[in-house]
Amino acid sequence: MSFDIVIHNGRLITVNSKFDIIDNGIICVKDTKIEKITKSESAKPLPIAKLSIDAKGGLILPGLVNTHTHLPMTLFRGLADDLALDEWLNNYIFPAEKRYINKDSVRLGSLLGCAEMLSFGITTCCDGYFIEDEVANAVLNAGLRAVLGHGVIDFPAPGITDPKDNIKYANKFIEKWIDRSPLITPSIFCHSPYTCSSETLKRAKRIAAEKGLIFQIHAAETRQEMEGIKARHGVTPIAYLDKLDVLDKNTLLVHTLWIDDNDINIITRKKANVSHNPESNMKLASGILPLVELLDAGIVVGLGTDGSASNNNLNLFETMNVTSKIHKVKNLNPTLIDAAMVLKMATIDGARALGLDNKIGSLEPGKQADIIIIDTRQPHLVPLYNPVSHLIYAARGSDVKDVLVAGKIVVRNKKLLTIDIGNLQDTVNLMADKIDVTLP
Amino acid sequence: MSFDIVIHNGRLITVNSKFDIIDNGIICVKDTKIEKITKSESAKPLPIAKLSIDAKGGLILPGLVNTHTHLPMTLFRGLADDLALDEWLNNYIFPAEKRYINKDSVRLGSLLGCAEMLSFGITTCCDGYFIEDEVANAVLNAGLRAVLGHGVIDFPAPGITDPKDNIKYANKFIEKWIDRSPLITPSIFCHSPYTCSSETLKRAKRIAAEKGLIFQIHAAETRQEMEGIKARHGVTPIAYLDKLDVLDKNTLLVHTLWIDDNDINIITRKKANVSHNPESNMKLASGILPLVELLDAGIVVGLGTDGSASNNNLNLFETMNVTSKIHKVKNLNPTLIDAAMVLKMATIDGARALGLDNKIGSLEPGKQADIIIIDTRQPHLVPLYNPVSHLIYAARGSDVKDVLVAGKIVVRNKKLLTIDIGNLQDTVNLMADKIDVTLP
Repeated sequence: MSFDIVIHNGRLITVNSKFDIIDNGIICVKDTKIEKITKSESAKPLPIAKLSIDAKGGLILPGLVNTHTHLPMTLFRGLADDLALDEWLNNYIFPAEKRYINKDSVRLGSLLGCAEMLSFGITTCCDGYFIEDEVANAVLNAGLRAVLGHGVIDFPAPGITDPKDNIKYANKFIEKWIDRSPLITPSIFCHSPYTCSSETLKRAKRIAAEKGLIFQIHAAETRQEMEGIKARHGVTPIAYLDKLDVLDKNTLLVHTLWIDDNDINIITRKKANVSHNPESNMKLASGILPLVELLDAGIVVGLGTDGSASNNNLNLFETMNVTSKIHKVKNLNPTLIDAAMVLKMATIDGARALGLDNKIGSLEPGKQADIIIIDTRQPHLVPLYNPVSHLIYAARGSDVKDVLVAGKIVVRNKKLLTIDIGNLQDTVNLMADKIDVTLP
Repeated sequence: MSFDIVIHNGRLITVNSKFDIIDNGIICVKDTKIEKITKSESAKPLPIAKLSIDAKGGLILPGLVNTHTHLPMTLFRGLADDLALDEWLNNYIFPAEKRYINKDSVRLGSLLGCAEMLSFGITTCCDGYFIEDEVANAVLNAGLRAVLGHGVIDFPAPGITDPKDNIKYANKFIEKWIDRSPLITPSIFCHSPYTCSSETLKRAKRIAAEKGLIFQIHAAETRQEMEGIKARHGVTPIAYLDKLDVLDKNTLLVHTLWIDDNDINIITRKKANVSHNPESNMKLASGILPLVELLDAGIVVGLGTDGSASNNNLNLFETMNVTSKIHKVKNLNPTLIDAAMVLKMATIDGARALGLDNKIGSLEPGKQADIIIIDTRQPHLVPLYNPVSHLIYAARGSDVKDVLVAGKIVVRNKKLLTIDIGNLQDTVNLMADKIDVTLP
């Protein structure tokens, strides 16, 4: 049997259920899938393939899964920082969205975000925004895998003048993109329990549930939100969402910082999943997720970068590093949230949170060939005693050398093959030059 | 007048007292110094120089100052992680040092650390270790600027069989290196108040003070240390050091996590400086520095990476990013520790903490030409509204394109010119292969 691509001369970090690490491993790819994983034997020649990729002693691992993005906001990276949340949102982000978000800017911002993610080894993202059609086109152009949720909010939003139409737009997006591309899974992104009415939340969840799709929602992000929902509905945001019956295994709760023991019980019982975005939570000073408690309860937690306006990059290596460190120091216990745990969160658990763990998140025969190779021949990765420790504590996004999505090479020797990145950067810079940051 | 090097076509982030940012700036270097800083005018030709460096629209800033390293420990990067501090130190780091630290390994580990730091834009470090002679040789080879402290500890240490000789070795190091190279300033590194006797601390400080050199000391790093010193001496570690009269403007207190209001008053009154190493403190779960309180009191705080065994890299861009975020979330206030403040800590305030602010830490005529150039034409740095925000929140060490130290180009187009890095990596890997990580 001949393969399309054989990757060899590297150490495979499989992230399979046994967390196997295979020195001098070989991955054989056929069409979109991993067909075979084996160990190189010096006597045997390499399996026959159309193309062989030499990992040059580097680390080979499943592509990273970024469970929370707002790709078009890449356009607003660094537009406003170090501000109180209210000021940041009301004086900068919301007005900037109102004035500058349109089909063109959504497409360009998303393309730029995809370019960054692929370069940094992210092969799957879960996005929520508006004019999501153009996000989907950008994702397909770039060659990424994505769960894409059209935004639902009870306010006028980009592309939706009358909020009464919000569910209609979201539904239209689902109908257009369901079964259209193996790389794209549509979804619904309800903004939050404080910006959507009970009725909106229930209707949106019903539509997602009918087709078994992911229902994404920001929940319990800030103390203000938690207190506001308590004042209005008498219960915490999580208990409120549970009362509306929108929590189940296809619900992705984003942030969930301000939760209590009862909330953790609810999330556990309903098998809802959590997207943890520590860099955004830290930069916006929202709070710190009770991650240890969630994991102890058996809740699936994936990692996310959040949008570029609040991070300010889409680099999951950085997020992995910070995740381990922030929870160690929060708990004053250096043994917690170890490197292997964090790597799982960024791969297989992220895939689980998106309902895609049968397809991606680990290197196993039968799974999609979403694979990244890390170049370890660099001063900051020498010596190498433990490859998993290196991935979390020493490596960075810029160490990613090659990236495959569904068996297709999208980054080769640190060069992105799917997008003319020079041209895209010039176009985005021209667009950004016109963005007036002295907003009223 | 003709210059040696002219750097042009970039935005100068001067970090001078007015925090001037000069679009399309020009820096003229002669010999080791910045001779002139000006703004490019289209009508005028560039100043005449032997070499001109085109920054290609990137950011030009003073080289970063890393106020705390243990360079030889680069050899133990990732040797042991996710462990309780006692286990990490007693079962891994101390035995590894005992078995494997010698002249050769100190030189190689230090060279590797210097290579990493220069590649990531660090032009000055403050190191403390043993067999520091070999660290000094490595620093000179690499072409870095450094404050180097020979270790003093009341236990047998690498190169010092009998602790009674500790001060003698430190003194010998000072006498050898004082006035030997403009790039190296000797110093004394007393390990900590719990590993050095009162007598040792006082004697070491006296020797440093006689020559006006920096006295570095780990202090108040862990809760255990704070409680131990209180139990033994009746006061906090900082108050204890003050009682011994070792605090003054030439004292660099490293970590200082477990301090109270009285300690802050002492540090302020004595004008001692602080080295903040948030990544190490988080990874070892030691605690979080009361940074806002220190800065409010007017204390000078520089940033450090700490050694590679507890970080696990020497990347001050990552440290800058984490510094801003950890203190925002700790205080639940996103307006605190803003980007400009963090950049100052990593440059001019670090220089101040090392007593070198008359020479380095900002781009100003008369200062040493320690200059780095950031390549901003990359997906994760587009668009660019605010260069200072980008340096802290979006840029990374790997974005550093060119590095000058004392007017000498040491990194050009991301290539380190002073060390054969391929060869060094191979040698270190061979050495690391023999390190037995299953220590008793």
